[in-house]
Amino acid sequence: MTILDIIEKKKIKAELTTEEINFFVEGFTNGTIPDYQASSLLMAIVLNGMTDRETFDLTNAMLHSGDIVDMSHLGGTVVDKHSTGGIGDSTTLALAPILACCGVYVAKMSGRGLGFTGGTIDKLESIPGFNTSLTEEQFFDVVKRVGCAVIGQTANLAPADKKLYALRDVTGTVNSIPLICGSIMSKKLASGSDTILLDVKYGSGAFMPTPEQALELAQKMVQIGTLAGKRIGALITDMEQPLSDYVGNTLEVLGILEVLGGKQNRLYREIKEVAVRLLVLTGKFDAKQAENAFQDAIDSGKALAKLAEMVQAQGGDASYILHPEKFVLGTEEVILASEYGYVDQIIAADIGRACTHLGGGRMTKEDVIDFSVGVVMNVELGSKVCKGDVLCRIYHNGKGVEQARQLLVNAIHIGDEPICTHKIAYAYVDKNGVELY
Amino acid sequence: MTILDIIEKKKIKAELTTEEINFFVEGFTNGTIPDYQASSLLMAIVLNGMTDRETFDLTNAMLHSGDIVDMSHLGGTVVDKHSTGGIGDSTTLALAPILACCGVYVAKMSGRGLGFTGGTIDKLESIPGFNTSLTEEQFFDVVKRVGCAVIGQTANLAPADKKLYALRDVTGTVNSIPLICGSIMSKKLASGSDTILLDVKYGSGAFMPTPEQALELAQKMVQIGTLAGKRIGALITDMEQPLSDYVGNTLEVLGILEVLGGKQNRLYREIKEVAVRLLVLTGKFDAKQAENAFQDAIDSGKALAKLAEMVQAQGGDASYILHPEKFVLGTEEVILASEYGYVDQIIAADIGRACTHLGGGRMTKEDVIDFSVGVVMNVELGSKVCKGDVLCRIYHNGKGVEQARQLLVNAIHIGDEPICTHKIAYAYVDKNGVELY
Repeated sequence: MTILDIIEKKKIKAELTTEEINFFVEGFTNGTIPDYQASSLLMAIVLNGMTDRETFDLTNAMLHSGDIVDMSHLGGTVVDKHSTGGIGDSTTLALAPILACCGVYVAKMSGRGLGFTGGTIDKLESIPGFNTSLTEEQFFDVVKRVGCAVIGQTANLAPADKKLYALRDVTGTVNSIPLICGSIMSKKLASGSDTILLDVKYGSGAFMPTPEQALELAQKMVQIGTLAGKRIGALITDMEQPLSDYVGNTLEVLGILEVLGGKQNRLYREIKEVAVRLLVLTGKFDAKQAENAFQDAIDSGKALAKLAEMVQAQGGDASYILHPEKFVLGTEEVILASEYGYVDQIIAADIGRACTHLGGGRMTKEDVIDFSVGVVMNVELGSKVCKGDVLCRIYHNGKGVEQARQLLVNAIHIGDEPICTHKIAYAYVDKNGVELY
Repeated sequence: MTILDIIEKKKIKAELTTEEINFFVEGFTNGTIPDYQASSLLMAIVLNGMTDRETFDLTNAMLHSGDIVDMSHLGGTVVDKHSTGGIGDSTTLALAPILACCGVYVAKMSGRGLGFTGGTIDKLESIPGFNTSLTEEQFFDVVKRVGCAVIGQTANLAPADKKLYALRDVTGTVNSIPLICGSIMSKKLASGSDTILLDVKYGSGAFMPTPEQALELAQKMVQIGTLAGKRIGALITDMEQPLSDYVGNTLEVLGILEVLGGKQNRLYREIKEVAVRLLVLTGKFDAKQAENAFQDAIDSGKALAKLAEMVQAQGGDASYILHPEKFVLGTEEVILASEYGYVDQIIAADIGRACTHLGGGRMTKEDVIDFSVGVVMNVELGSKVCKGDVLCRIYHNGKGVEQARQLLVNAIHIGDEPICTHKIAYAYVDKNGVELY
């Protein structure tokens, strides 16, 4: 078997065997197959596709390229939520304490942000003292005591995916359902939780441009997860506007504290949807029970207290959670509406890019983040505005203000006509099938 | 403009602009575009194709990556013949002197063999003293005095193609009409002749598996050559059996001497067809005149004398041409028919591979060739054989005999039924259209 034979097969749209897929993933990971042969095969996969069986084998091969975390010793249900990448997506910060209050474990290994999407780890580090680099022992100790913990990835999960993704990123081979599926699912299966909810985004800034394509991707991932013995479901949501009104590290923590305080905004509704779906997925709750458990966690203040407990257990200053006014923000500037009308388009990716220009995100892995900058939206899709109304507020420390202002002015479009209100999601899918919203 | 944008465009089957194609060819040649991005684009081209305009631009970009030889100072018609690669294809050795006798120049830069097809340069070097490394000045001097000369490539012709072909060879991106077209035509246009005949092979061992695909490739190349101001035509021929009964370096010279001596075998008919087509293409001959000129060159002995003259002018020992018995061959062994029947299949590529095993070809660029080994076929497609008849003769010096024998036994298939006789070619195409045989 040679890599050339494998390329030739995929070139004529033939189905690769399990052995051929393992040969490729192992060879590429250990360096015996060079980048230029891998990228040729990747482009053939992008254009000629993979069967479900091939996609499952690819996921499996990448899964077994590194460590597989065992969480069975926790002795309870361990849930996980994965988003394919959004702007203002800080839901993990709220979901972890809420779900822990509902009696399931959240032991999350999360990522840092790169480009225009923020990372959960960066957001948490805006809380003074918060340690995202616990040892595995410390991590599981916090999970057991508190019920939830969030750290940066320590274990060597799916190294094949890490190397493959770096190559896909520079060879135009990102947009491919089997490749995205393999990439996401190999890491999810390696990370040890038994119940998984995927949040699959669609829209111009996402992997999948249309809801139909996002649903197709979600179905494949649910199928693979189910085959691998996981309880798994997926929500299809759009990236037509930032998930939260707050975009930026400290700002997103503030947005989460509002939600845990009971403010029923768009972010609240999204978090509730995910939490209820996850609790039902565990098999321990029906929909009504799940909703009640969620509501109780918020209304009783237990979820907010649980976040403070987790922050303290991970070395952070919990007083910031209970007294959010302690957080320091940059200088405020406002962007005003220049005309009367209805907000009919918000380019979410450009809100993220504006935040990065202000210093709130990384362009390269080495960049240091300014936690105190970002953008707070005053409008959402459908908002009616008059000339002079505040569209959004910028928090800055002098860096990149003009670029950010320019991006924001163009990212928020005001039209003449009112538009339909916005659904939480397009569809939900699990092993029982698809449910459209 | 970035290479990623170009890959993304070709991935969705969009047409690349001239600037984008130039950007790719220049960047890849000068090393600013790495192999892994080039191979991703190449696979997208293989699967999504190129328009005629893109193919022309690709050829042009590769043509201008190096030197373009000027032969206008010769003050006459300069003809060239190019084969896409065959077994026992020694036609250049006969065509050069024949065409020179007909009053046109043949100034050929040729290649060495690699893998299972032999190279013209290697065949010529089996004549003691023959120098294929003339300076450009010496080369043109021989062409002017003798009318023909054949050397190895000295000028820096289409270096982009050289680098690109090396990458295509190891990334499964060889079989693509626009890429093959660009590769062949960039070198042909750079080599300075004004009248070109292409010999496009089809069959299992060739670039193109079917005659229809070979014709499509030929039409594209003729179109590009015509657009570039050349007189150009193409013959579509099969690789169902070796072109000559002689396969091997010295052996193929012996086969050519037979043809120049007037032996009217299959190789003779093929050489006549090419010579007549080329002479007509120059515009100085009609079909009848061309045939007469060819016949006179052979029958008068002038073509044989011209080969001796060229050999001498290039430093070789011309006595070998006039006394072929001086050539040394390896030990002879025969392969006998094991049954009665008709030869209904000859795997040409395996005859070439057998010759390489004997030491008559190169597996790597560094291999030294044994000129005295090879294979002489006693049968051709359609031959009737009895058990014990000689199928072919092996000439060897002890190396690789068993592998060669095994390959040859399997390469010559004997069936029960007679088969149709073999046509010289499937079609001829020039700017006036296609002519089927």
